[in-house]
Amino acid sequence: MQNRPFPWQDKPENCQDVIWRHNENPIIDRYSIPTSNSIFNSAVVPFEDGYAGVFRCDNKAVQMNIFAGFSKNGIDWEINHEPIKMQAGNTDMIESDYKYDPRVVFIEDRYWITWCNGYHGPTIGIGYTFDFKEFFQCENAFLPFNRNGVLFPQKINGKYAMLSRPSDNGHTPFGDIYVSYSPDMKYWGEHRCVMKATAFEDSAWQCTKIGAGPIPILTKEGWLMIYHGVITTCNGFRYAMGAALLDENEPDKVKYRTQPYLLGPAAPYELMGDVPNVVFPCAALHDEKEDKLAIYYGAADTVVGLAYGKLSEVIQFTKDNSL
Amino acid sequence: MQNRPFPWQDKPENCQDVIWRHNENPIIDRYSIPTSNSIFNSAVVPFEDGYAGVFRCDNKAVQMNIFAGFSKNGIDWEINHEPIKMQAGNTDMIESDYKYDPRVVFIEDRYWITWCNGYHGPTIGIGYTFDFKEFFQCENAFLPFNRNGVLFPQKINGKYAMLSRPSDNGHTPFGDIYVSYSPDMKYWGEHRCVMKATAFEDSAWQCTKIGAGPIPILTKEGWLMIYHGVITTCNGFRYAMGAALLDENEPDKVKYRTQPYLLGPAAPYELMGDVPNVVFPCAALHDEKEDKLAIYYGAADTVVGLAYGKLSEVIQFTKDNSL
Amino acid sequence: MQNRPFPWQDKPENCQDVIWRHNENPIIDRYSIPTSNSIFNSAVVPFEDGYAGVFRCDNKAVQMNIFAGFSKNGIDWEINHEPIKMQAGNTDMIESDYKYDPRVVFIEDRYWITWCNGYHGPTIGIGYTFDFKEFFQCENAFLPFNRNGVLFPQKINGKYAMLSRPSDNGHTPFGDIYVSYSPDMKYWGEHRCVMKATAFEDSAWQCTKIGAGPIPILTKEGWLMIYHGVITTCNGFRYAMGAALLDENEPDKVKYRTQPYLLGPAAPYELMGDVPNVVFPCAALHDEKEDKLAIYYGAADTVVGLAYGKLSEVIQFTKDNSL
Amino acid sequence: MQNRPFPWQDKPENCQDVIWRHNENPIIDRYSIPTSNSIFNSAVVPFEDGYAGVFRCDNKAVQMNIFAGFSKNGIDWEINHEPIKMQAGNTDMIESDYKYDPRVVFIEDRYWITWCNGYHGPTIGIGYTFDFKEFFQCENAFLPFNRNGVLFPQKINGKYAMLSRPSDNGHTPFGDIYVSYSPDMKYWGEHRCVMKATAFEDSAWQCTKIGAGPIPILTKEGWLMIYHGVITTCNGFRYAMGAALLDENEPDKVKYRTQPYLLGPAAPYELMGDVPNVVFPCAALHDEKEDKLAIYYGAADTVVGLAYGKLSEVIQFTKDNSL
Amino acid sequence: MQNRPFPWQDKPENCQDVIWRHNENPIIDRYSIPTSNSIFNSAVVPFEDGYAGVFRCDNKAVQMNIFAGFSKNGIDWEINHEPIKMQAGNTDMIESDYKYDPRVVFIEDRYWITWCNGYHGPTIGIGYTFDFKEFFQCENAFLPFNRNGVLFPQKINGKYAMLSRPSDNGHTPFGDIYVSYSPDMKYWGEHRCVMKATAFEDSAWQCTKIGAGPIPILTKEGWLMIYHGVITTCNGFRYAMGAALLDENEPDKVKYRTQPYLLGPAAPYELMGDVPNVVFPCAALHDEKEDKLAIYYGAADTVVGLAYGKLSEVIQFTKDNSL
Amino acid sequence: MQNRPFPWQDKPENCQDVIWRHNENPIIDRYSIPTSNSIFNSAVVPFEDGYAGVFRCDNKAVQMNIFAGFSKNGIDWEINHEPIKMQAGNTDMIESDYKYDPRVVFIEDRYWITWCNGYHGPTIGIGYTFDFKEFFQCENAFLPFNRNGVLFPQKINGKYAMLSRPSDNGHTPFGDIYVSYSPDMKYWGEHRCVMKATAFEDSAWQCTKIGAGPIPILTKEGWLMIYHGVITTCNGFRYAMGAALLDENEPDKVKYRTQPYLLGPAAPYELMGDVPNVVFPCAALHDEKEDKLAIYYGAADTVVGLAYGKLSEVIQFTKDNSL
Repeated sequence: MQNRPFPWQDKPENCQDVIWRHNENPIIDRYSIPTSNSIFNSAVVPFEDGYAGVFRCDNKAVQMNIFAGFSKNGIDWEINHEPIKMQAGNTDMIESDYKYDPRVVFIEDRYWITWCNGYHGPTIGIGYTFDFKEFFQCENAFLPFNRNGVLFPQKINGKYAMLSRPSDNGHTPFGDIYVSYSPDMKYWGEHRCVMKATAFEDSAWQCTKIGAGPIPILTKEGWLMIYHGVITTCNGFRYAMGAALLDENEPDKVKYRTQPYLLGPAAPYELMGDVPNVVFPCAALHDEKEDKLAIYYGAADTVVGLAYGKLSEVIQFTKDNSL
Repeated sequence: MQNRPFPWQDKPENCQDVIWRHNENPIIDRYSIPTSNSIFNSAVVPFEDGYAGVFRCDNKAVQMNIFAGFSKNGIDWEINHEPIKMQAGNTDMIESDYKYDPRVVFIEDRYWITWCNGYHGPTIGIGYTFDFKEFFQCENAFLPFNRNGVLFPQKINGKYAMLSRPSDNGHTPFGDIYVSYSPDMKYWGEHRCVMKATAFEDSAWQCTKIGAGPIPILTKEGWLMIYHGVITTCNGFRYAMGAALLDENEPDKVKYRTQPYLLGPAAPYELMGDVPNVVFPCAALHDEKEDKLAIYYGAADTVVGLAYGKLSEVIQFTKDNSL
Repeated sequence: MQNRPFPWQDKPENCQDVIWRHNENPIIDRYSIPTSNSIFNSAVVPFEDGYAGVFRCDNKAVQMNIFAGFSKNGIDWEINHEPIKMQAGNTDMIESDYKYDPRVVFIEDRYWITWCNGYHGPTIGIGYTFDFKEFFQCENAFLPFNRNGVLFPQKINGKYAMLSRPSDNGHTPFGDIYVSYSPDMKYWGEHRCVMKATAFEDSAWQCTKIGAGPIPILTKEGWLMIYHGVITTCNGFRYAMGAALLDENEPDKVKYRTQPYLLGPAAPYELMGDVPNVVFPCAALHDEKEDKLAIYYGAADTVVGLAYGKLSEVIQFTKDNSL
Repeated sequence: MQNRPFPWQDKPENCQDVIWRHNENPIIDRYSIPTSNSIFNSAVVPFEDGYAGVFRCDNKAVQMNIFAGFSKNGIDWEINHEPIKMQAGNTDMIESDYKYDPRVVFIEDRYWITWCNGYHGPTIGIGYTFDFKEFFQCENAFLPFNRNGVLFPQKINGKYAMLSRPSDNGHTPFGDIYVSYSPDMKYWGEHRCVMKATAFEDSAWQCTKIGAGPIPILTKEGWLMIYHGVITTCNGFRYAMGAALLDENEPDKVKYRTQPYLLGPAAPYELMGDVPNVVFPCAALHDEKEDKLAIYYGAADTVVGLAYGKLSEVIQFTKDNSL
Repeated sequence: MQNRPFPWQDKPENCQDVIWRHNENPIIDRYSIPTSNSIFNSAVVPFEDGYAGVFRCDNKAVQMNIFAGFSKNGIDWEINHEPIKMQAGNTDMIESDYKYDPRVVFIEDRYWITWCNGYHGPTIGIGYTFDFKEFFQCENAFLPFNRNGVLFPQKINGKYAMLSRPSDNGHTPFGDIYVSYSPDMKYWGEHRCVMKATAFEDSAWQCTKIGAGPIPILTKEGWLMIYHGVITTCNGFRYAMGAALLDENEPDKVKYRTQPYLLGPAAPYELMGDVPNVVFPCAALHDEKEDKLAIYYGAADTVVGLAYGKLSEVIQFTKDNSL
Repeated sequence: MQNRPFPWQDKPENCQDVIWRHNENPIIDRYSIPTSNSIFNSAVVPFEDGYAGVFRCDNKAVQMNIFAGFSKNGIDWEINHEPIKMQAGNTDMIESDYKYDPRVVFIEDRYWITWCNGYHGPTIGIGYTFDFKEFFQCENAFLPFNRNGVLFPQKINGKYAMLSRPSDNGHTPFGDIYVSYSPDMKYWGEHRCVMKATAFEDSAWQCTKIGAGPIPILTKEGWLMIYHGVITTCNGFRYAMGAALLDENEPDKVKYRTQPYLLGPAAPYELMGDVPNVVFPCAALHDEKEDKLAIYYGAADTVVGLAYGKLSEVIQFTKDNSL
C-alpha cells in the first residue's frame, strides 16, 4: 500500500466528532453510469497501484446488480458499464435473481466478494476474482433469508469466518449479527450470535436491527467491526453507523460497542434520495501507520459517500462509549 | 393548435435521457392560490388560443378539490380561487366528498373531466364542460374503490373507453390497470385487465402498483400510455413514470412497456414535500409535427412540474426497452 | 309452487326466536360428493316439480367451483360430481380462475346465476341457464374487487338491479352493500350505497362488514333483504344473519334494518369447521300464502344448514327492532 | 415582562398568513450541545430578566432527555451540557427511562414542568423548579400510555388542570385531547374528552391524531390552545399546527377550532431531518399589549424553529375558520 | 357467610390439578335471558342470605351491558332481564357507550362495582350499590384506554387501591397490571407497575398480556390475585388463569407468581363459542375456614363456568411453582 | 421389523380416501404426563422389539420441550415425565431456549434427532442417541430462523441431507422447503429449493406455507415426502397433509406432488384445541411388504393422532393427482 495514495482529508477545524465527511460528497453520483438509477452500498479494496471496487448499481428498471470499478486515488472512480458476469466457481448452481450490497476482501490468494444474492429470496452470495476481470461464483453460504454477509480478512482458528444478518423476505423489522465458520467456503456451521439490536432505552439508533458493514479490521484491541444500526421512526427506518470491538479469536465475544453512533444522516444527500435518512457503510480502507481510516458508505440508498477518521480515535471512542 | 405556443425547452446538452425537466420547475408552487396547501396531479388541455387546466388544489384544511385554470403558453398559469362547482349532468346524484387527480380530454363536442370522486370512498367521477365555466357532473363510472380513471380521446369500436385502477379504501398497496367500455358515459362494462404491476425482479420501480397518467396519445404504434409505477421502499412509496404502447383497437393488448422508468424522483422538489419521492404524470400535450411532448406531473404531492421529450424518441425507447 | 313440497319444520316449543334451525342440520355434509372438501354458501331455486341448486363445492385441493344439484323436497340433494361448464353468453371472455358463493334467481325467461368470479381477483360473475344443464357465462358485472353480487328478482324501473359488496383482494376487513343497475346485463351504472357496516356501539355483530345474502323477496313492506354481518373478535371474523327492508322502487333507501341478528353461530357445525363461527345465508325459499320462509346458509365454511321462519314474523321483527 | 425583550420579527410583506417564520430558522441547531443528535420539541418561559427553557435533546445514542437553557432575548440560547437531574418531589418514585417533549409553566410560586416520562412506557411526568437549578420530580399524572401533557397556567375551579393525549406504546396511530383535574398535583380525575381527531373529509391534516402544544393562553375568547394535528400519508405522518379556543371555565367545551392549519411543514428544515414533515409546537410567549405571539416548535424532530403571529389575528382566524 | 351455602364440589378422584371444574358447567348458558347472545365474564358476591351478581350480558345486537342477578346457592342464578340503570354518584358525567367485564366488592358500607366503561374508548367505570336495586355511577377512574379494573377489598395505607390493565382502543396485543390509589374514589394517582407479561421462554401462556381477575383475597401470604394471561397462537389469543401473591401493604411487590397456569381452555364450552379458547376469571368466593375457593369465569366469551380449589393448595402451588 | 407389531387398522368400508384415521384417536391425550398442557407433533421410530419416540410436550407454563417415550405396539405409549437432557455432542455450545417438533431417524449406527431449537429464535437442532437414554446435542444446522428440519434416512451422494423450512421469528406467513447437505453433520451447504407454496388458484390448502413432515421414505418412485401445507383463512391458519415424490439422487427435483390434500382437519380433536384446524404429520412407519403406512400427526396443536394408508395407494394417488 506504500505508493498508493490514501483517500484522505484532515479533520475540519472545530469538528469534535470522531468521523467526518469528505467535503465533496457524494463521491459517486446516482447517474454515474448511463443505466444507473442509483449507486450506493459499495465495496472498495486496494488493487494494483490503486483501488478496485464492486459497486451496487441499481438500473433504471430498479434491478439490482454489482459492477466492477477502478480508481487511482480511491475518490475518483471509473465504473464499468456492464455488470459483473459470473462463471461457475465451486458449484454450477449460480442462480441469481439479483445482487446487491457487495463486500470485498483479499484472503490468501484472491479477492473474495460477498453480496446479497437473490435465490428464492435474499441470501449470501460468495464469489471470487483474481483480477477484477474474471469472476467466479460459489455456493451460497446460507439458506435464505439473509443479508449483510461480511467475511473476516483472514481465517480464524483455521476456518473462514463470516458475519451475517439473518432476516426475512421483506423490509425486515428485526436483525442481529451472527458469525459462522467454514473449512472450505462451501459448507458453513458453528453459527454464533455476535450481537443483537439494543433495547430502545439503551441506544435507540440501533434498536430495530443491526448489520455488519466493512470487512473487520484487526487491531490490538481485537476486530474493529463498523456496522449499521436502524431505528424505526414514525416515518420509517433511519440508518446510522457505529463500531464494535470483537475478540480476535472468538469474534462472537463483544468487547466494546458504541452506545452513540459514529455518523448519522445529517447531510442533504443523506436526508434526501430514494430512501431518506440512510448512512450505510460497506467498506473501509485503513493505513495503520498513518492512523487513517476511510469509510465508504451508501447515502440515502442513492449515492456513495466517503468519511474519514483516525483509527486510534475510533478505537478509543468505542472503548470510552461502550454500551 | 397551430398558433398556440407549445410549452417547450430543448434537451440540455449532455442529457442522455429521453425525458428532461423544465429548467424552472416547479411551474406551479404549492401556495399559488391563497387557500392552497399544495397544487399537483393536474390536467391541462388546449383551449381557445391557449390552454385550460383542471388543477388539484388541496386547501390548508387538506381538503381535496379541483379548480379551473388558464394559460396562454402552458407554463404560466392563472388558477381560479374558487373550486369548480358542478351542476347535474346525466344524473341528479352528484355527491362528492372530495375530488382529486383530474384528467381532461376533448371528445366530439366537449371537454370530459374524470377525477377521483369521494362517494363512500374513492371512485371515478365524470363530468364535462364546454367552456371551463359551467361544469356538469355525471354518474360515477364505477363502484368504489377506484382511482386514476383516464378516458381515451376517442371512441373505440363505437364506445367510450376508460382506463382505471381498482383499489381499496386506503393507501392501496396493490393496483393494476384495467379498461372498461360504455355506450353512453353512464353504464360501463366489458372490463379487461390491461397490465399489472411487475415482479420485483423484472422491474422493481413498478412492482407495487401502477396507474394510467395522461390521456393516451394515438400513434402509429398504438396508444401511447404514460403511467406511474410505485415501489415500496422501507420508508414508503416511490412513484416514477413509464410508458406503454397499447393496441389501437384492443387496448387491453400491451404491445410494449418500458422496463426502465422514464423519469424518477431526483430533483429537490420531487424528493421533498408533503409526500417525498413522487413523480405523478396527469397530462400531456403533444405536437406530432414538431415531435414534441410536454408532460405535466405532480411532484412530491406538493407542486406541478413540467417535463419534455421527443414523441418519436419516447416511442422508440418504449419499443427498445420493453419488458 | 303449489304441488312442490316446501322444506319445513314447525317452530320448536319454547323457542322464542324468529328463526330456528332444521333439526337434522347440516342438510349437506362436507364430503357429499367424492372430490369435495366442503360444500357451503349455496343457492337453491324452485325448478320443475322440485328444486334446483347451484352449490359451492371446494375440492380437496381447496379450489372453489360451483356445481348444479337437484332435490325433490329441498332437503335431500343430489349434487353433480362435475362442476358447471360455462359456454359463451353475451361475451367470449369467460375467464374464471375460480367461482364461489353463487346466487340463483329466475327473471323473465331464465335462471340467472351470479357468483364471485376470479378474474384478476374476485369480482361478480353472471351467467344463465334455462335448464340447469347448459350454462352460459356473461360479462362480469364490475371491475374487481367485489363479492356477494345478488340480483333482484325483477327489473326495477325497467332495469336489472344488483346488490354487491365492493371489497379488496384479501380477507376484506370492510364492506358495505351497494346497488347498481343495467339496461342489458352487460353494462352497469347508477351505483348507489344501500347500507353500511354499523358503528360498534350500535350493533357490533355487523360492524366490520356486511353483504347481501339470498335473492331479495318483495313484500308489502318493500324488499326483504336477508344479509350477513361480520364482527372482528380477537380470534377472527364471526358471521351472523340479519334482515332489512328496502324501498320497493328505490332500493338504496333502507326502511328498516335489524339491530339484533336473526341467527348467529351457536350450533357445533357452525362453531367448528374450516372457518369457525360462520352463518352465511345465500338463498331463501318462501311461500307467501303459508307464511313460510326457508333459508339456506353456509355453516363454518364447511356445510350447508337450513333454517326456518314465518315470513310475517321476520318482517315484523325487522320493523320492531330496527336500527 | 416589561424590560424583557420579546422575540419578534414583523410580518414579511406579501405574507398573507397568520403565522410566519423567523427568518433565521432554525434558531437551535441539532448539534448545539456536544452530545446532541437533535434538539427539538422544547419549552421556554419568561425567567428573571430573560427566558429559561427546558429542551429536549436526544443524544447520539438517541436517548431522550431534557436540559435546562437560558436566553436573554428568546432567540439565542445557551443550553446546559448536562441533563436536568431530578430530586424527589411529592414522591420518592422518580423512575424515568427517558424524558421528552417538555412543557413549562409558572403557577402560583414555581415553574411546573411536564414531559413524556418513560415509566414502563410513555406517561406524563410532572416536576417543578423555583430557579431552573434544582428540579423536583412528582408522581406521574397518569398510567401509561400518554403523551403531550400540558398544564393550564392557573387553577380552574380550584383545581389544577392538565391536557393530555392518551396513546399506546408505539407510534400511536390515533389520539384525542382530554383534560383532567387534580386538587394537589398528585391524584388526578374528572377526565373529560376535549376534542378529537377529525373526519378525513372535514380537515385531513388533523385526522390521524392531535395533541396539545404550548401552555394555553387565557384570552377574552377563552383559552387559546395551539395544538398539533397529524395526517397519515402513504409515506408516514405529517405534523402541522392549529389552534382552538376553549371555554374558560369548562375547557372541555370547544368554542372554535381551526379547520385549516396555521403552519405546516414547508421549509427545508421542516421537510428534511430525522423525521421529515414535522411542525410540532411546544411553547409560546405572548405580549398581550403588543399583540405579539411567538411560538417555539420542533422541526423535523431535529431542530427548534420559531414563528410569529399577532395574537388578535390568530384568535380572529380561529373564529373565522372554525370547523 | 355461615348459613349461606357455599358453591362446591369435591375434587374428582384421580384429578391431580389444583383447580377443577364444576361438573355441570356451564352454570349459565348464553341464552339465559331473552335478549342475550352471551353471558360471561361476570362477578358475584355474598349478599343477604345468598349471592348477588353483576353479569355481562351481550345482547343479540352484540351490545355489551351489565345486569344484576341473584342466587341462593351461587350456582343457580336468576338474572334480571333489564340492564342496570345508573344514577349520578359522585359526578353527573355518567356517559357510558357500553359496560362490560364487571367486578364487585363490598368495602366499608356498600358494594362497589368496577367495569370496562365506554367513554371515547374503554376505561374503568366505578359505581356502587347498597341493595343491588339502586345503582350509582362515579367518575371514571382513569383516562382511556384501560380494562380489567379490580378494587382491593379494603383500603391500603388509608387509600382505595385498584388494579388495572392499561390498553389501547382495539384487541390490545400487550398489557401489564398496575395498581393505583385514591383518597376518595374520585382522584387517582401513585400508579405503580405490579407485574408484566412474561418472556415467551419463561411462561408462554402469559406472554402477550395479563389482567387481574377476581377481587384479591387477603391471605397470610399476602394478596392472592387470580389473573388471566394470554398467548398469541397463529390462530389468535388463548386466555388461561394463573395466580400471584402480592405484598399486603405494597401490592406492587410480587412475592410469588405461577409459572404454569392454573386452568386453561380444555372443555368444549371453553374451546368453542364466540371467541374460542378463553378462560377468563372475574370473581371468586372463598371460605377460609373450610379452605374452599370457587372461581367464576367466562368461557369462550359465551358462557359462565365455575371452578373449585382448596385455598391452601392454590397458595402452596403458587409458592412452589413461582416464576 | 418382522416380529414387531405394526400399528394398523384396515380401511373402513365405504371409505374412499387414501388415508384414514385410527378409530380411537387421539392415541395420546394432552394430559398424558403430569406436567403437560399438550402433546403433539411427535416422532416415533422402530426400536428394539417395539418403538421409541420423541414427543413434544408443552408443559403448563407452555414451555416447549421434547421427551422420550416407548411403546410395544406403536399405539399405547409410555412417555417419560422428565424431558430429554442433552450432553455435548460435536460441540459444547448446546444452548436451547426451547425444543419442539422433533423428528427421529436411524442412520448408520445411531438415532438422529432433529428439532426446532431455540437459539436466539427458532433454528434446527441436531442430536443423537444410541439407546434413547443418553442424548448428545450437536451444532445447530443453520442460522435462525428455521423450522421443520427433517433428515433423509441415508446419505445422498455421500453426504447427509436435510430438508428444512426457512422462516422468520414469529408465526411465519410464508415458507418453502429446501434441502441442504453436510459431509459431517456439522457444516452445511449446497442449499437447494425443493418446492414452494402454491398459487392460491392451483391448490389453496398449501398456498401460505409448506414444511416437510416425517422422514422421507425411499420408494421405487423416489423419496416419498409427506408434508404439511397451510392456508390462511379469515380466522387463521389451517394445516393439512399432502405428499410428494422427490428424485432419489437429486431430491430438489420434484417428480410428483399432490394437488389435493391427503388428510385435512375434520375430526373434533383436529378442529378444537389450542390451535384449531391443525393436522401436522411428524413421523411415519411403513412396512413395505405388507404395504402399510402409519402416520403420526399432531392434531390441533394439542394431541397426537394416528392415520393409516396403503403405501402403494399413496404413491399412486400422488402420481395421479399431481400439480
